[in-house]
Amino acid sequence: MATTRVAIVNVTGYIGVDIARILLRHPEVELTCVTGRSQAGKTLSEVFPHLTSSDLVIQPELDASVDVVFSAMPHKASAEVCEPFVSQGLKVIDISADFRLKDLAEYEYWYGVEHPCSQLLEDAVYGLPELHREAIAGARLVANPGCYPTGAILALAPAMASGMVTGDIIVDSKSGVSGAGRSLTMTTHYAECNESVSAYAVGGHRHMPEIRQECGLLNPDLGEVVFQPHLIPMTRGILSTCYARLSEDWLARGEAAARDVFAVYRDFYMEAPFSAVVDAPPATKHVWGSNYCHVYARVDVRSGRLLVISAIDNLVRGGAGEAVQNMNLMCGFPETCGLEALPVYP
Amino acid sequence: MATTRVAIVNVTGYIGVDIARILLRHPEVELTCVTGRSQAGKTLSEVFPHLTSSDLVIQPELDASVDVVFSAMPHKASAEVCEPFVSQGLKVIDISADFRLKDLAEYEYWYGVEHPCSQLLEDAVYGLPELHREAIAGARLVANPGCYPTGAILALAPAMASGMVTGDIIVDSKSGVSGAGRSLTMTTHYAECNESVSAYAVGGHRHMPEIRQECGLLNPDLGEVVFQPHLIPMTRGILSTCYARLSEDWLARGEAAARDVFAVYRDFYMEAPFSAVVDAPPATKHVWGSNYCHVYARVDVRSGRLLVISAIDNLVRGGAGEAVQNMNLMCGFPETCGLEALPVYP
Amino acid sequence: MATTRVAIVNVTGYIGVDIARILLRHPEVELTCVTGRSQAGKTLSEVFPHLTSSDLVIQPELDASVDVVFSAMPHKASAEVCEPFVSQGLKVIDISADFRLKDLAEYEYWYGVEHPCSQLLEDAVYGLPELHREAIAGARLVANPGCYPTGAILALAPAMASGMVTGDIIVDSKSGVSGAGRSLTMTTHYAECNESVSAYAVGGHRHMPEIRQECGLLNPDLGEVVFQPHLIPMTRGILSTCYARLSEDWLARGEAAARDVFAVYRDFYMEAPFSAVVDAPPATKHVWGSNYCHVYARVDVRSGRLLVISAIDNLVRGGAGEAVQNMNLMCGFPETCGLEALPVYP
Amino acid sequence: MATTRVAIVNVTGYIGVDIARILLRHPEVELTCVTGRSQAGKTLSEVFPHLTSSDLVIQPELDASVDVVFSAMPHKASAEVCEPFVSQGLKVIDISADFRLKDLAEYEYWYGVEHPCSQLLEDAVYGLPELHREAIAGARLVANPGCYPTGAILALAPAMASGMVTGDIIVDSKSGVSGAGRSLTMTTHYAECNESVSAYAVGGHRHMPEIRQECGLLNPDLGEVVFQPHLIPMTRGILSTCYARLSEDWLARGEAAARDVFAVYRDFYMEAPFSAVVDAPPATKHVWGSNYCHVYARVDVRSGRLLVISAIDNLVRGGAGEAVQNMNLMCGFPETCGLEALPVYP
Repeated sequence: MATTRVAIVNVTGYIGVDIARILLRHPEVELTCVTGRSQAGKTLSEVFPHLTSSDLVIQPELDASVDVVFSAMPHKASAEVCEPFVSQGLKVIDISADFRLKDLAEYEYWYGVEHPCSQLLEDAVYGLPELHREAIAGARLVANPGCYPTGAILALAPAMASGMVTGDIIVDSKSGVSGAGRSLTMTTHYAECNESVSAYAVGGHRHMPEIRQECGLLNPDLGEVVFQPHLIPMTRGILSTCYARLSEDWLARGEAAARDVFAVYRDFYMEAPFSAVVDAPPATKHVWGSNYCHVYARVDVRSGRLLVISAIDNLVRGGAGEAVQNMNLMCGFPETCGLEALPVYP
Repeated sequence: MATTRVAIVNVTGYIGVDIARILLRHPEVELTCVTGRSQAGKTLSEVFPHLTSSDLVIQPELDASVDVVFSAMPHKASAEVCEPFVSQGLKVIDISADFRLKDLAEYEYWYGVEHPCSQLLEDAVYGLPELHREAIAGARLVANPGCYPTGAILALAPAMASGMVTGDIIVDSKSGVSGAGRSLTMTTHYAECNESVSAYAVGGHRHMPEIRQECGLLNPDLGEVVFQPHLIPMTRGILSTCYARLSEDWLARGEAAARDVFAVYRDFYMEAPFSAVVDAPPATKHVWGSNYCHVYARVDVRSGRLLVISAIDNLVRGGAGEAVQNMNLMCGFPETCGLEALPVYP
Repeated sequence: MATTRVAIVNVTGYIGVDIARILLRHPEVELTCVTGRSQAGKTLSEVFPHLTSSDLVIQPELDASVDVVFSAMPHKASAEVCEPFVSQGLKVIDISADFRLKDLAEYEYWYGVEHPCSQLLEDAVYGLPELHREAIAGARLVANPGCYPTGAILALAPAMASGMVTGDIIVDSKSGVSGAGRSLTMTTHYAECNESVSAYAVGGHRHMPEIRQECGLLNPDLGEVVFQPHLIPMTRGILSTCYARLSEDWLARGEAAARDVFAVYRDFYMEAPFSAVVDAPPATKHVWGSNYCHVYARVDVRSGRLLVISAIDNLVRGGAGEAVQNMNLMCGFPETCGLEALPVYP
Repeated sequence: MATTRVAIVNVTGYIGVDIARILLRHPEVELTCVTGRSQAGKTLSEVFPHLTSSDLVIQPELDASVDVVFSAMPHKASAEVCEPFVSQGLKVIDISADFRLKDLAEYEYWYGVEHPCSQLLEDAVYGLPELHREAIAGARLVANPGCYPTGAILALAPAMASGMVTGDIIVDSKSGVSGAGRSLTMTTHYAECNESVSAYAVGGHRHMPEIRQECGLLNPDLGEVVFQPHLIPMTRGILSTCYARLSEDWLARGEAAARDVFAVYRDFYMEAPFSAVVDAPPATKHVWGSNYCHVYARVDVRSGRLLVISAIDNLVRGGAGEAVQNMNLMCGFPETCGLEALPVYP
């Protein structure tokens, strides 16, 4: 069988280059083209010394014939880049937010731009394999989830689907600095963010509607989602702590709820190769460098609340690894292909 | 006027030694005795090389005649140590949790020990100057607040006192590792906690009842307090993100609430030398090494919630600095004496 | 062909568990037994949550029939453990220092113990593949190099072998904290070593004679080796900066030396799959989580010196990965088998 | 006595703002003007939230009548700014490199610019109080030392002055990231430098001639200075490890040299309030946030070398604190005035 040829558009950001890292060792595909305007003409290893073994030259534009395209362009530009590829029948995985929100008005409100090709929204599949595995397998365009939504939705999905909770949801997330990208900002200047924790986007963050959309699909009675992200002095990882009120049914179970919640979560992720329900609070270190998500759920009888905590590596499970997992599903490869590496600890 | 003589019992923990650092430069007192069994016989500078200038010898027991005692002993042992000093008429500031909770049953439930001298509970004053300045000034025994409660209560007090919020409170706190103390544990082993975030004490943390007690004094209608601490890879600092539902009155104000909340907070802390109401989300770096608390409050109209975020240095404002501030009040010194140092940035 | 069965003795240290991480994904072997007294009876995933997928139970002693044994015991105990395995004809890779130094007196001087089975010293092969590939392939006992010596020797070997330098060598190394192991110490307590750099073992470090031995084999005229390690606030990585005086021959080349040195280094490592000669100063981040060593050499004409800088991941190239590379050579597997993962950046 | 009025030109860099932090609490001076073009019109507390208490407005240009000026402008621009102030008889402390090197050709070689007012070089005093206290006290223009030279010269001065060493000197320095300044660069982007160590300026660094100049004044027989800086993942601090060959005299002392070296160092710094000769290897944490320098010297008999290690806070002792110390000397204030704060540990 011919090897599948793959391209990465805009390889020079952190998710783009992490896709390259994974694909360079993926047994079923060949990375045949990477693009990036500012570094065009240089080899991958010149720009990214950790990829010493690669002499692939960064191109200004995609110029090769490929089967699959990952776009790691910024939003709006990404939709514009993806549209012709989709039309040509390539399989496209869009890392940007352009095809995640089904509600066009929501997209335009939160991103402040007009959508360049909203006609593709209907066909696009939200690329969270635990929720949409079959649709992804049949998709021609997959919207790779945001990093925060990946962690938050994986934390909440079993509770949503089972009617365990009711009312509003509070998601308090803590992200490593790589989530802010590779562009230089005062916020990500080492001496500014090292040894410091802060909240940001206190008025509202673009990832909130994504969490609400997917949780709402699982439970139409969902109330408001309050999502508050924080910047943490570490490179990789997102820990999301979710607070929700137990439903009447679950409150009535009393102490048994504590045991039942574990079973609900375990069953929900029984078939998911990268979602592990753990029985102690997870640390982002437990998933570092891997595509795993660790989820821990606990009932607090006193306050009548469910607490769920999830840990992911924001660049792998919340980005490059999830994108490759989606490619695997779209191409009929084993779902875990190229993603088997265990987390690097400590 | 004779200089006030001060002792620190158990100087070898992080809060103990930070009290020493401050007192060695305090113009109104003389640090005349420090104790610590494991290091007795050595000088402060041998055990703590940052105190190069001090040749004070660590004693096995307090053996000098002093006016003020700081006890940095563990709980239960601390109460036992403090009792005779209080009886002798010394001014005592207890860093442990022994005299913080007014409800003896609560204390015994959360700390799992019998209180060795509960007769002192009534006289002990909870040492948060913003709430109890006058009582502290007249106290013979001050219970220095826990680090988390300091940040959480300072975040919530104006909202509590003004009836701005109703129902349950969720406090999601992020602490640097020094909060876990100087004793060796796997949790605080560098390679285990560096580049990682995790929640701990998910079933309930001893600092919760302290937050509930003080918030409840300000607002008897307070619901449950859900308090969830997290360990963050940095040395110093606590950021507390607090979520509460706005009361009917405040919901009715609509957009005006956003402006009013700032005024309520600013007025509440008008006279507090170390509590600053800021107009952008604070970072723990903004208060590093200082006794300041930065508080930021924001109304989220969509979800009908108040978010308040506070930042402190857990060892200064959440420990040694607050203890010295209490001493200043008890001794009639200027409240800020010895604590004027500005935060060290970056 | 039957799968090769492998055991790890003392899996609970950082190198032991990193060998497990690699072997659990190694296509040619089956990890059939792991031992560790303090955690015996628990599964790997209970003790090490990043290995969620492994339900291998930690044994008190090696009790299975295996083909290859890795010993990650402390020195002296390791030799005692390895001896019977070697006698039984198993292939043994010893992570400890017990079989690294050919000179028994040196060993006993630096480690302060009597060697329990010095009769094996002659047969043991120093497991640095770049220098001893063929001997390793034929060995029954391989002494896995220390982490510092791996970086230092790889930096110096081409210069030594080519007669480029003369006289004493100064090696100034900077190591992440994981190099100090998983046992709790004040030195590796987070709040003590974070945001701080310090030198240690200023009077002499046990890895010096190892560097001297291997460099001396390449160049018998070697002078003294001054080796000074430092502790750096990061989890993984060693950067070694080496200073040596250019030989007369090389001084005479003048400016041409700058170009020639690169060629000498590149040629020396032409066949080495994991040693990359780079043309800009390396960072430990460039090799994070991988078995690569990056080496950069530069002539300083003004001072007549050669500077060589090498970067490794101390737990992989300086430990677990190198050990697996040695196993691959001993077992006739492809040298890079199981070690193909690219460095994780950023 | 009238309070001394002080200005800081270009307050918006890390050293500029750290001078502000110190001066805002200095009992003898009033900070009356701060300038900074990009942030002109804002208050100090708007730009630097840690200075909550200051409503000083940043000016585009120095417009007030002052007695002392600190210039934290970049080199060349700084000399141009300082010249008229010196002419007007103000006391000027220049943080830039413009007046450090006495040899005009050296300056122009290393900084690549023509010196705008070399006529002031003769009068300028190199502001290292331990070496030039009296000259500083009488100076109208002080060149504040570079951060690396401060640590390196303080490490080497006693050895130089006493003839303890001979030949070349190797200085291997490890600096926190704040030393690279507040301007955004890829090198100082959090995810790039966190969890990584690297060498930079391998071909030669501008601070080398400064070290050579001051060491050469103490010992005209000095050989070459090899200076190699490294970037370390921490915010503040420089550790310098210095290697030098012992002179014949000192080699002849044998084991006694170990004891004698301590006495030479201790005596040299007997009168220096901020230089402490310590008897164990220092850590940068021991001086964090303070003006102290800790120096540790050790003889290595085997290799015939002296190792000296110094630790400073690069922004205080290597910048703002040293500048204020120079101001104190120039103005006749107590040398330690405003600088008494002890290091913040942990």
